[in-house]
Amino acid sequence: MADGLIDKNDVNQIIYFDNAATTRIDERVFEEMLPYLKEQYGNPSSLHDIGQAASEKLEQSRGLVANLIGADEDEIYFTSCGTESNNMALWGIARAYRDKGKHIITSAIEHFSILNTLREMQKEGWDVTILPVDSYGFVNPGDFKKAIKTSTVLASIMHANNEIGTIQEIKEISKIARESGVIFHSDCIATAGIIPLDVNNLGLDCCSFSAQQMYGPKGAAALYLKKGTRIKPMLIGGIQEHGRRAGTENVAAISGFGAACKIAAAELEKNSREITLLRDSLIKGIKENISNIKLNGHPMQRLPGNVHISFEFIEGESIILLLNSEGIAASSGSSCASHALKSSHVLTAINLSPTLANGSVLFSLGKYNTGGEVKKTVKALGPVVEKLRKMSPLCK
Amino acid sequence: MADGLIDKNDVNQIIYFDNAATTRIDERVFEEMLPYLKEQYGNPSSLHDIGQAASEKLEQSRGLVANLIGADEDEIYFTSCGTESNNMALWGIARAYRDKGKHIITSAIEHFSILNTLREMQKEGWDVTILPVDSYGFVNPGDFKKAIKTSTVLASIMHANNEIGTIQEIKEISKIARESGVIFHSDCIATAGIIPLDVNNLGLDCCSFSAQQMYGPKGAAALYLKKGTRIKPMLIGGIQEHGRRAGTENVAAISGFGAACKIAAAELEKNSREITLLRDSLIKGIKENISNIKLNGHPMQRLPGNVHISFEFIEGESIILLLNSEGIAASSGSSCASHALKSSHVLTAINLSPTLANGSVLFSLGKYNTGGEVKKTVKALGPVVEKLRKMSPLCK
Repeated sequence: MADGLIDKNDVNQIIYFDNAATTRIDERVFEEMLPYLKEQYGNPSSLHDIGQAASEKLEQSRGLVANLIGADEDEIYFTSCGTESNNMALWGIARAYRDKGKHIITSAIEHFSILNTLREMQKEGWDVTILPVDSYGFVNPGDFKKAIKTSTVLASIMHANNEIGTIQEIKEISKIARESGVIFHSDCIATAGIIPLDVNNLGLDCCSFSAQQMYGPKGAAALYLKKGTRIKPMLIGGIQEHGRRAGTENVAAISGFGAACKIAAAELEKNSREITLLRDSLIKGIKENISNIKLNGHPMQRLPGNVHISFEFIEGESIILLLNSEGIAASSGSSCASHALKSSHVLTAINLSPTLANGSVLFSLGKYNTGGEVKKTVKALGPVVEKLRKMSPLCK
Repeated sequence: MADGLIDKNDVNQIIYFDNAATTRIDERVFEEMLPYLKEQYGNPSSLHDIGQAASEKLEQSRGLVANLIGADEDEIYFTSCGTESNNMALWGIARAYRDKGKHIITSAIEHFSILNTLREMQKEGWDVTILPVDSYGFVNPGDFKKAIKTSTVLASIMHANNEIGTIQEIKEISKIARESGVIFHSDCIATAGIIPLDVNNLGLDCCSFSAQQMYGPKGAAALYLKKGTRIKPMLIGGIQEHGRRAGTENVAAISGFGAACKIAAAELEKNSREITLLRDSLIKGIKENISNIKLNGHPMQRLPGNVHISFEFIEGESIILLLNSEGIAASSGSSCASHALKSSHVLTAINLSPTLANGSVLFSLGKYNTGGEVKKTVKALGPVVEKLRKMSPLCK
């Protein structure tokens, strides 16, 4: 543990069930990045060969990223992270269409990079409707339709929820948006590279996704923007990304993003099938071994790797810490709020009782997890929960 | 040149005189990043050991970055690039002090990430004064003082100009700002890690700097914000960076940034001295061998590696392209505008004639350059300029 490093051998022994927070980089992705971290260090805007080599790699990566979601290359804009993509979509599109109206629709279970941005925009005079969701986390398409006003310019509903894993009926909702001339954005950070995602099939005008959630590096994300949709830049400066996102492109990370998208396009189906089996076996194991639990999110229509479970009478964070000492890395919800010490807005929105909400653990499985890890976790979890419940004043 | 890669051996043979666009990564920086690109892949917001290892590295890097500029750790906010830092400083500080006034002062030779952002802010109702500069690129402190109004909340003047290399009299200007209660930001992207930079000595309330300009990776930059100075976040979402910059931190790039700052702090003086000698020898060589040229920027008070020269009667871009075919990578100005096909706003501001402005080449030298490379470049440049002048209709 010298200077903050986990011993390499230890890391490989840890059971990593926090793939929703970020994924381990695929070795093939790293290999693709390597030259651009070292000798291919040019600035893609430079006219000489070193710059042009970087520029060519950038455009090649753009093609691979576009291909994963069925988009054209010139519909992809690179950003630094999912949060930036979400912020850019909201600020950028709303400002570009300000003359048309100032009403925006979203849902109560969006990521903070959507909800907190919209709260800030409300202060600047935007009119925001936050739709409720049902106990599974579904937005009611009827509610969505009713919320549309003549001033509605933009709607943003996430493809799948990063905490409870429910996959939204996006196609149905985007259809309503399209029929009403409302631009439709979807936060696809939890789904791109994980489940099939075709922007045309889903009817998206715009979506956000990120490399670090699909075995790519941190530092690269994208905004898909359908041709003809207007947007104002959020980062302003040079003429990178066709003037829509200034700042030197992180070529190495983007190369990794391209590689991650290429690998995902080829292997997503197999991975998704296998991870779903692991997920279901973890859910089954927990259900069989531990009483007073609740699986949150929709039982079937959920992310392949998502196991979000509430353990009654005890604190999710205590479970996480005890599991951690057993070498199991899980999360108590969204990592972006892990230090916030507030109960999750997603769990409040699905109307989970505070007792259950506080006892929630998210196991998010990925392609590097194994059946053996699932078994070990089920085995470790029983005593952990028992120990905490013995100490709990809530537990009779 | 298969799939856009320059042959590794070729890259190492290229004379890279475009260090202002971006620098080659220091091998020691890369080694520091490596674990965080691979097995140390955690999200710093995660509570488990893998997340905490990333979080510890992040904070260790913050200390190293702060140390380079004489700041405290909690005065450093990580961003994705210099453009983001500059944008964040302007939008964030101006919004935080909006009640106090809406006037902002800057100079005519700032980077586009300052000037274009302020142009956008003008449309949103901010009152912006753009100060002229003299023929060397200096802002007149008297002009600065006169421009201050009771409504002035913020001033942004760069430490050194990225094109012509002139190092501004920042201390004198920041003193005037301080005496008038105006918050003072400086774009230090061209200077941090290159020349001594102490935020307290320079009297800065805020400054921007970036890893990729000091032998660090792309994808990491910082905003220094003096304790007590208010700012509104630009990227909104999770509670990373004390709620001032949302989005998962690019831990690997930030680790590299920390390492680059540590190395710069130790070696900057020696590098600066050596690069200055190379610079002066390149200037001397060009002056002795080629007629009708002009060195732009201040002859002495300039960045150690900056050789910005106008070659009369010919186009800078043609010189770049011919030098490129000789294996020499130089630039015609700011890489962020290299595809813009407009003459540089910096050269217009120093009142350079259009003929000279169009014939400008920026050779930006760095710590990996050698005296042999300077000699080869001087030797190559003569025939290149001669060839182009023979073809030029402007040349008698």
